Amino acid sequence: MHMFSRRLWLKSLKTTGFSSLCLASLTVLPAVCRAEPDSAAPQVKLVAPGIWRLRFGNPEEFTPTHFRSAPMDAAGLEAKASSRPMPLDPAKISFQVSDRGCSLHWPMKSDERIYGFGLHTELFNMAGQRVILKPTDKPENDLGESHAPVPFYVSSQGYGVFVDTARFASFYTGNVSPVGEPVKTSNGEIQTSTAELYRSRAPQVKTMLVDVPVAKGVDVYVFAGPTMLDAVERYNLFSGGGAMPPLWGLGVQYRGYAKYGAAETLALAGRLRAAHMPCDVWGVEPGWQSHAYSCSFVWATNRFPDPDGFLRKMNAMGYKMNFWEHAFTSPTSPMYDKLKPWSGNYLVWNGLVPDFASPQARRIFLRQNDTALFNRGIESVKLDECDYQPGSPKPWSFPLATQFPSGLDGEVMHSLFGVLYQQTMWQPYQDKGLRTWGMVRNSQALASPLPYVLYSDSYDARCYVRGLINAGFSGLLWDPEVRAASSVEDLYHRLEVAIFSDDAVIDSWFIPNPPWDQVDRAKNARNEFMPDRQSVAAEVRELLDLRMSFIPYLYSAFNEYRVTGKPPIRALVLDWPNDPRVRQIDDEFMYGDSVLVAPMFAGDTNRPVYLPAGAWYDFWTHEEISGGRSIEATNGVGQIPLYVKGGTLLPLAKPVEFIKPDTCFDITVNMVGEKPADFTLYDDDGLTTAYARGEQTEIELHADGDNHSLQRSGKYRGPERYKISGWTRF
Amino acid sequence: MHMFSRRLWLKSLKTTGFSSLCLASLTVLPAVCRAEPDSAAPQVKLVAPGIWRLRFGNPEEFTPTHFRSAPMDAAGLEAKASSRPMPLDPAKISFQVSDRGCSLHWPMKSDERIYGFGLHTELFNMAGQRVILKPTDKPENDLGESHAPVPFYVSSQGYGVFVDTARFASFYTGNVSPVGEPVKTSNGEIQTSTAELYRSRAPQVKTMLVDVPVAKGVDVYVFAGPTMLDAVERYNLFSGGGAMPPLWGLGVQYRGYAKYGAAETLALAGRLRAAHMPCDVWGVEPGWQSHAYSCSFVWATNRFPDPDGFLRKMNAMGYKMNFWEHAFTSPTSPMYDKLKPWSGNYLVWNGLVPDFASPQARRIFLRQNDTALFNRGIESVKLDECDYQPGSPKPWSFPLATQFPSGLDGEVMHSLFGVLYQQTMWQPYQDKGLRTWGMVRNSQALASPLPYVLYSDSYDARCYVRGLINAGFSGLLWDPEVRAASSVEDLYHRLEVAIFSDDAVIDSWFIPNPPWDQVDRAKNARNEFMPDRQSVAAEVRELLDLRMSFIPYLYSAFNEYRVTGKPPIRALVLDWPNDPRVRQIDDEFMYGDSVLVAPMFAGDTNRPVYLPAGAWYDFWTHEEISGGRSIEATNGVGQIPLYVKGGTLLPLAKPVEFIKPDTCFDITVNMVGEKPADFTLYDDDGLTTAYARGEQTEIELHADGDNHSLQRSGKYRGPERYKISGWTRF
Repeated sequence: MHMFSRRLWLKSLKTTGFSSLCLASLTVLPAVCRAEPDSAAPQVKLVAPGIWRLRFGNPEEFTPTHFRSAPMDAAGLEAKASSRPMPLDPAKISFQVSDRGCSLHWPMKSDERIYGFGLHTELFNMAGQRVILKPTDKPENDLGESHAPVPFYVSSQGYGVFVDTARFASFYTGNVSPVGEPVKTSNGEIQTSTAELYRSRAPQVKTMLVDVPVAKGVDVYVFAGPTMLDAVERYNLFSGGGAMPPLWGLGVQYRGYAKYGAAETLALAGRLRAAHMPCDVWGVEPGWQSHAYSCSFVWATNRFPDPDGFLRKMNAMGYKMNFWEHAFTSPTSPMYDKLKPWSGNYLVWNGLVPDFASPQARRIFLRQNDTALFNRGIESVKLDECDYQPGSPKPWSFPLATQFPSGLDGEVMHSLFGVLYQQTMWQPYQDKGLRTWGMVRNSQALASPLPYVLYSDSYDARCYVRGLINAGFSGLLWDPEVRAASSVEDLYHRLEVAIFSDDAVIDSWFIPNPPWDQVDRAKNARNEFMPDRQSVAAEVRELLDLRMSFIPYLYSAFNEYRVTGKPPIRALVLDWPNDPRVRQIDDEFMYGDSVLVAPMFAGDTNRPVYLPAGAWYDFWTHEEISGGRSIEATNGVGQIPLYVKGGTLLPLAKPVEFIKPDTCFDITVNMVGEKPADFTLYDDDGLTTAYARGEQTEIELHADGDNHSLQRSGKYRGPERYKISGWTRF
Repeated sequence: MHMFSRRLWLKSLKTTGFSSLCLASLTVLPAVCRAEPDSAAPQVKLVAPGIWRLRFGNPEEFTPTHFRSAPMDAAGLEAKASSRPMPLDPAKISFQVSDRGCSLHWPMKSDERIYGFGLHTELFNMAGQRVILKPTDKPENDLGESHAPVPFYVSSQGYGVFVDTARFASFYTGNVSPVGEPVKTSNGEIQTSTAELYRSRAPQVKTMLVDVPVAKGVDVYVFAGPTMLDAVERYNLFSGGGAMPPLWGLGVQYRGYAKYGAAETLALAGRLRAAHMPCDVWGVEPGWQSHAYSCSFVWATNRFPDPDGFLRKMNAMGYKMNFWEHAFTSPTSPMYDKLKPWSGNYLVWNGLVPDFASPQARRIFLRQNDTALFNRGIESVKLDECDYQPGSPKPWSFPLATQFPSGLDGEVMHSLFGVLYQQTMWQPYQDKGLRTWGMVRNSQALASPLPYVLYSDSYDARCYVRGLINAGFSGLLWDPEVRAASSVEDLYHRLEVAIFSDDAVIDSWFIPNPPWDQVDRAKNARNEFMPDRQSVAAEVRELLDLRMSFIPYLYSAFNEYRVTGKPPIRALVLDWPNDPRVRQIDDEFMYGDSVLVAPMFAGDTNRPVYLPAGAWYDFWTHEEISGGRSIEATNGVGQIPLYVKGGTLLPLAKPVEFIKPDTCFDITVNMVGEKPADFTLYDDDGLTTAYARGEQTEIELHADGDNHSLQRSGKYRGPERYKISGWTRF
C-alpha cells in the first residue's frame, strides 16, 4: 500500500511538460565553476537525496547532461529520500589527466559484480573485463560496443555510477593493477599452452579504472542504494523519469514490405484486419520517399500518389502510422542547401549529416519532416542508421574526425547522434501535447524519458533476450523484433519474446507476405504459402492476443517507470539482490512486478527455470510451484514459460484487435496466491500528455480473501479504459 | 653493373656505427620551430632528395622520429638523387585540429591502390577501407590491427607517405566524402536486403583521410618514386637502412620445449646434431628464469644449475643461443625496487612495465639482463608479449591510461613498446660491435635497421605468407615460424615457407620432441613417435638444407637491403608496378632478385602461379617457362614452387649443418637464361659490425656466354666465406 500512496504524493510534485524545452535550457547543471585540471580531490556536490556529483578536473562541455532529454525529476528523487552516506570514498579515487584524456580508478571488492553499460546482448555480469563504450551496428560482441553504450553501471555493492561523457570511454572492471596496490604473485610455473599462460593471472586486488579519452576532467555521479534497483531508479529519475507510452504503443506493430506503394500497403493492411490479426501500428519502410539512402524526406508520388488519402484510409482501418527514415539528407531533398551550413563536414551515402546539436539544423530538419510527415498527423517514426561501425573495415557512417558547426566532433556526435535525433523528432509531439512511441537504432545515457525503443539488424534470439534484460539496468527500451524465422517453431519462439518486450514488432520489410503465411523468405517472395498457414496464423493470433491481454498490466508498469524509475522489464538480480543463484541469470526476466518470463528457443524441448524463494504459479496450468530452486520447463511452442508471483493481483484484459479512442478493456483480476498486494491501473486518455497535468485516474485493486474492492482517485474524466468484469482465484 | 658501383660509392659515404647512440641524440630533426596549430599551409622542408617533410600544426614530441633506431642514411639518399617534384600538392591537403586530435585529407585517384601499413596478414591492397593502426596480438583481422602497425603506405601512383605518429591513427583510404567534393547520387532504388542497402554506395570522388588522435599537429613525410619500390627504398634509408643479419642468423633456429632444463636441452640439442639436422640457433623458452610471467631475469637454478656450463656445452655443439623473455618485471626480480620509479603506473601480470623511453629504465633493465644473459655471451633474445589487445574483452597488457615517467602515455607506449624494447636489447651488441638477430612480437615505424624478426601466436598458413609479403612494404621482417602441424604434409608446407623467410624458425616450445618425430601434439608429449619418422626427418633435413644452400644469396639480398633499402622479400607489385595482373597477388613473392616463390598449402595438389613477362625457369626441373601468364603448379610436398628469373646468376651453396667462424661456402653459380646480370657476394666476418667500417669484400660474379669471371674489391681480410667451385648452365 505504502508504495502507491507515496507515488501519489510524488506526482503532485513532479515537474510537468517538456514541450517548452529548448536547447539553451537543456543543461541542468551550470557550466560555471569548473575546477582546475588535475586537482587532487574532486568537488563533491549533493545533487539530490542519494545522488552526488564528483567533479574531477575541467569537464568537457558536450556531455550527456548538457543535452538532457528532460529535466531531472527532483521531486521524485526527494520522495525517495535517502540518509545513506556516499557509497564511494572520494579520497580513494585516483584521478589523472594526460594529453590523451583523463582517467580515474578506485578500489573494488573482490567479489563485486558489475551490471549495466547499456544495451549489451552478449555480456551480463561485466566484472573482470574491459568494457569499451562505442556505438555499433554489430552489437553481438563481448567488447562492450552496443546500440546504446551507456557510461552507467550498478555494482552488486548496491550503488550506481554514471560518468558524464560522450567519449568512447573504457571501463576496466577489475582487471588492471595500479602500481602500489598489494600484489600476490603467481607461482611462476612454466606453462606450455597460451591458454595456461594467460589464465589465472588476474590481479589479487581489484580496481575499477575509467578511461575517458580527450576530456581533461569529468563529472562522476554516484547513486545510492541500498539495492541496485534503488540505484537504477535514482538514475532513471535523474534522467527525467521513465518514458510514457501511448496505449496504442503497447499494441502490436507490423512493418510492411519495403517495395510496396500505397495500393499494396492498403491491401496488405486490409488482409490483416480481415484475418483479425491484432495490430495497432503500421510501419512504412523507405519506399515512401522519393530517394532513400540518403533520404529526400519527400513522398515518392509514383508509389504513393496521394499521401493524405493513403493515411486517411489506413487510419480508417484503425492503424496508427510509423514512418521509416534516417537522418542523412540527400542532395535531392528540398532542404539540402539550407541544411548544408548546419551539417557535419563529411557526407554519408552522399547525404548531409544534420548537426542535431544546433537549433538551426533541428529547425530546418523538422520543417521538412513537418511537411512530409508530422503535419499529416503520423503517430511515430523509426530512426534508422544512427549508429556507428567501430569494428568494420568499411564503415559507412561519418568518420570520427568529422566536425560539426555546434562544435561537436565525430566521436561525441556518434555517441549522442541517436539521442539528439530522438529529441529532434520528439519535439513536434511535445509541442502538440501528444505521446509517441517510436523506434531508434542508437541511444546513450539519460535516455529513460525518450519514447523510442531500440532495435537491431543483428538477430541472435538469445542475444535478443539478453538485450531485453540488460536494457533495464540503463534506462533503455528494447524491441526484439520478429523478422525472419528459420522455421515455424522459431517464428513462435521469437514472437513469444517480442510480446513480452517494450514493443511487439513484426518487421516484414523484406517479405511481401506476413511470416505466418510463409516463413521461408524466398518462397514468401514468390507468394508460395505454407500448407498449414491457417493454423499458423491462428497460433500467431493467440500469441498477439496474449500481448493485448497484458496491456493494462504493462501500462501500469510503464506508469510506475515514469514516476518511480522502476524499469518495467528487469533482470532477476534487481528484484532479488541477495539471492546468489540469480547473479548470472541472463535468460529469465521480470515483466512488471508479478510475472517471470523464461523464453525458450528454437530447438529447445525443455529448459531449466530458476524461481526465487516464495510461491509461484504456472501461468498456463495455475499449478503452484515453490521457489528457491530450479525447475524444468517443458512448455510447448506458443506457451512460453511464465510464472506468476504468489501474493499478487494480475489484471488481464479480453484481447482487442487494436486500441480505439473509446476502447474499454474488459478485465479479469487474477488473485494469485495468498494475501495479494494491491495493484493500480492507470486510466487516462492514452494519447496525450494530459496525464502529466494530473488528468489521470488511479484505480487501486484490492483483494482480501474472497473480498475485493476497487478505489478510484484522480482527475481523468474521459471515457473509461477499464471495466472489471471478474475477480478470480488463479 | 652500375648498381653495384653506385653501391660502393654509397658505402664510402654511409654513416658508420650506431653504438654511441644515446637517447638524447635519437632525434634526427630538431624539435624547435614547430608551427602554430591549425595553420592553413604546412611548412615544407626537403629532408633529402625525394623526401619532403610537411609540418602541420604543432606536432607531438613522442613520435617514431623522436625515438629513431638509427640516423637517417643521408648519404644513401643522396646517392638516390631525384629530380622529381613532390608527389602531393600541399595546397590540396586539408588539415583540421579538434579537441580529439587532428586530421588531414587529400584527394586520391579513382583507381589508386594502397599498400603497406605494416605487418598485415589479411589485408593486401588496402584501398577503399579504414585501416586502424593498433598493435595487437590477434593480427588475423581486416581492420588494420597488427603486430607492427606502421603509419606508412605506398600508393600505386608511385610515392609513399609516412605520418610520424605513435597514436592509434586511422587511415580512410578512399571511403569518406568530405562535404564540398562533387558527388554522384545513387538511383535511390528501394532495396530489401541490408547487403544491397550498403553495397555500391561508395563515394564517386576518393579521398585519403588520416585521423590522428590526441595530436594537435603532425609531420607528414612524402617519399618520391617514380615507382613504389623507389618510395619503399627511400623510406628504409630514411629509417636508417635495412637490418644486417649475422651469417648465423640466416641459418635455422630451433626452439626447445619450455619445461626442459639444462640436461634435457643438451640431450635434445645433441639429438639434432646426431641427426645432422641443420641448426644454427637454439632458443630457450621461459624455463631458464626463476619466475616467468612476470619475469625475474634470474636463472632457475633448479632447472639450470650451471648456466655457464650449459652455455659452454651448447656452444661446443656449435649452437648460437637465443633466450626468451618479456619485459614485465616480477617482484621477485633483484632489479624490482630500482626499476619501480622508472616504470609505468600499472602492472602487467603483477610485474613492472619498464619505461624504455627513459635512459634510467634502460640502464637498470640492461644491467640485470647483462648479469643474466649478455655478459655470458648469448647471441640473441626473443622479446615476447610486447604487443597489445585492442580487440579483447580481457586485455592483459597495461591500459592506455598508463603514465610513464618519461611522459609517454599508454597509447604511445603501446605503439612504441616493441621498438623501444628492441633498441634497449640491441644496445649491448652495438656496444660490443656485434651483430644479433633476435625475435620480437611488436614493432612500428622506422624499424628497418632493427635486427629483430617479428613472429606471432596466430597461425593461419595463408596469413603467414601474406604477412611475409606485406612486411616488405614497411621495413619489417617476418618469421612465419613452424609450430604445430595438422599433418606431415602441413609440416612440410609450413617449413617450405619458413625457409624462404627472414628467419627459419622451428618453435617447439610446447612439444618435447621435434615435430618430425611426431606432429600430433598429444602423442609427441607422450613420446609416441610416427612410424615413418626417419623418412619425415630426411625430408625435413632436405628442406633445411635448401635454406642453407640459399644463405650466400640471401646474405647478398640483406646487404643490398642495408645499403639501398631494397627489401629482400617483396610483393610482385613492387618489382612489376606496371603489370596489372600482379596488383592483387598476395600469395607469391620475390625472394632476392632472382627467385619467385609460390607456396602451396596443406590440401593443395595444384595452384595457379602468375609469372610476370619474361623468361622463367622452374627451380626443380630447370624447364624454361615464358611469363606474362598464369601457369598451374603441381609440385609435390617438399618441392615448393620456385621460379628463377631468366638473365640472372643464382649462387647456391653446398649446405652446411651450421655456420662456424671458419665456414667457407662451397658455391656453384647457376647461369640462368640469357645475358645474366652480375651478382655480388659479400664477404666479411659475418659476426661483427666491422663491415660498416669497410671491412667487407664484394665478389662480383660475371658471366658472358661460357665465359665467367669474378672480381673482388674491398678490405675484408679474414677467412674467406666463399669458394666458387663451379659455374653451370641452369
